[in-house]
Amino acid sequence: MPDGTRRAPLPPGATIGVLGSGQLGRMLALAAARLGLKTHVYCEDSGPAFDVASRTTKAPFDDRAALSAFAGQVDTVTYEFENVPLDTAGHLATLLPVRPGTKALEVAQDRLAEKMFMTGLGIAVAPFRAVDSARAAHTALSEIGVAAILKTRRFGYDGKGQVSLAPGDDAARAWAEIGQRPAVLEQRLSFAAELSVLVVRAADGALAFYDCPSNVHKHGILHRSIVPSGLPSQDLARARAIGAAIAHALDYVGVLAVEMFYLGPEASTRLIVNEIAPRVHNSGHWTIDACGVSQFENHIRAVAGWPLGSTERHSGAEMTNLIGAAANDWWALASEPGLCLHLYGKRVARDGRKMGHITRLLPRAAGG
Amino acid sequence: MPDGTRRAPLPPGATIGVLGSGQLGRMLALAAARLGLKTHVYCEDSGPAFDVASRTTKAPFDDRAALSAFAGQVDTVTYEFENVPLDTAGHLATLLPVRPGTKALEVAQDRLAEKMFMTGLGIAVAPFRAVDSARAAHTALSEIGVAAILKTRRFGYDGKGQVSLAPGDDAARAWAEIGQRPAVLEQRLSFAAELSVLVVRAADGALAFYDCPSNVHKHGILHRSIVPSGLPSQDLARARAIGAAIAHALDYVGVLAVEMFYLGPEASTRLIVNEIAPRVHNSGHWTIDACGVSQFENHIRAVAGWPLGSTERHSGAEMTNLIGAAANDWWALASEPGLCLHLYGKRVARDGRKMGHITRLLPRAAGG
Repeated sequence: MPDGTRRAPLPPGATIGVLGSGQLGRMLALAAARLGLKTHVYCEDSGPAFDVASRTTKAPFDDRAALSAFAGQVDTVTYEFENVPLDTAGHLATLLPVRPGTKALEVAQDRLAEKMFMTGLGIAVAPFRAVDSARAAHTALSEIGVAAILKTRRFGYDGKGQVSLAPGDDAARAWAEIGQRPAVLEQRLSFAAELSVLVVRAADGALAFYDCPSNVHKHGILHRSIVPSGLPSQDLARARAIGAAIAHALDYVGVLAVEMFYLGPEASTRLIVNEIAPRVHNSGHWTIDACGVSQFENHIRAVAGWPLGSTERHSGAEMTNLIGAAANDWWALASEPGLCLHLYGKRVARDGRKMGHITRLLPRAAGG
Repeated sequence: MPDGTRRAPLPPGATIGVLGSGQLGRMLALAAARLGLKTHVYCEDSGPAFDVASRTTKAPFDDRAALSAFAGQVDTVTYEFENVPLDTAGHLATLLPVRPGTKALEVAQDRLAEKMFMTGLGIAVAPFRAVDSARAAHTALSEIGVAAILKTRRFGYDGKGQVSLAPGDDAARAWAEIGQRPAVLEQRLSFAAELSVLVVRAADGALAFYDCPSNVHKHGILHRSIVPSGLPSQDLARARAIGAAIAHALDYVGVLAVEMFYLGPEASTRLIVNEIAPRVHNSGHWTIDACGVSQFENHIRAVAGWPLGSTERHSGAEMTNLIGAAANDWWALASEPGLCLHLYGKRVARDGRKMGHITRLLPRAAGG
């Protein structure tokens, strides 16, 4: 089934299959329920989404029989993480619509493919070199010539599978550190701000954009997102245009996040795409509390073939992740006026684990 | 276990038992999930709440074994409808906290008890007479002397079990029409507006109020709620004081709705209590979209022994119920900018059945 094929919208009461059982799947399930749609969550392990789904399947992603049974019980399929195996998505796509499609997965799962894809669209990325040996790592570092980051091509997230390098560092050792896996060496950019574009594309190609948050990372993990970002409006317009170009090129259906670096008003190229996430995104969690229709609901609407909801925000917002032990402060957070508390129902607050998030609502303030 | 007893708050991950499987239970379950709390829904019939609950029990309300098993799997119990049998709530209350307590149920289940309770607190209600025979109905109608409504004492909701009467009408026939059941004859008041107080009381006695919506009923069913109501601030302050008095007198924990008639600025008694609902209430559905913390979340917070969340609204709102076939317009409604659509996942759109609701967000506008 080609992605983006026009189909009748799902009626209320239909079931959306969700691959993955994390907090994103949980918030997708909650958003679907609001619209009278059911969710069936499929994952190898039970997780936060299992508690709120109408049905669940716990089975390996390569279990064809379980996948086919799942496909028989749902009306369309989406996913909450970009590392869904391509075979899994491909098998399901022979049986029913998978939205966003497998093309977005292919691009997002491989940093090298992602950078080639961007370059092909005329979108700026950080200077990079492919690395598939210790020797190549060494050569790449001397060619880049400045501070750089070696990143595995696959399965990196939240700063995992990355090593920072300065000119003259032992590139071979860095390559060993990331497991001698196919990688990309990227120039480390010094940026004025990080931002993300949150674009949603409907099955009919219609687009809507949430205001771009400015993002702050700590230890490679998103720490905080703020809207309005305060960035110049012409740069935000350019950021949205980049998001639109990517969504159209992928024949995308659903919410797409594009993480970018803003190099500042003096830079010759002000916006550099860091990476894309073909799914709802942590930097869009504030939309639950500050918009009439959240990123989760708009993703569900798109996947169901419904009209998109308004992406307008009624408030300013500052979203902060609760990582690991930070969630132990839930009582104090629950006591803070104007704070919206979200906990994901995870039992063990391991270091680096996203346990929840908070959104502080602020006066609306204009600007994108 | 006396209601309102101080107990340790439930930690995230705990399970709240919910009696009743309707849309209110569904929205309670969604609100609990947001806080990382689980829900276990117990009802005689499966319903909209079953789709989003962590666990479900389908068993009669008088099944002591099923109730005891349920009590063993949850940490506290609440309910989504006021006609939970007292024996059910009473049995559960011997095993674990039931919030709000059985006292609120006793009062809310019997219109006569409710009116006596209000009168005892010095709160104005419409002139009424108890009716338990055709003769008593006749006498009551002549004593009231003006247009009146005969209402069954028990199991009336959404205008069911009610007959309107004018002086000289056949009161005995009206009593036959409502099934010759114990009843109350109430004077029909001509009011300037209907409003409801939405008060939430924490386990420690702390109170918070949402802005009072003005309400419009059609055919005895809530049609629309609007905030701000535009009613005079001193009357709204008085309405809140009435709500506070009722909540304290019931040693209430959770959201309590008090439906009132506003008789206008010239009336000697401007506010008359119509009835109370010891639960989250249809006239508070706008709080999902117009407040940082909804009535559903604040009910869950209270029941869990958590601090209350802010009841402040960031927007004005107009909530309209989707009754019966009105929900068939979901596509057009989903297409309307600034409209928040909520569907309850009910399959059959019977006449008079609440299928969903919509909230139109408006500029904030001051006033309560």
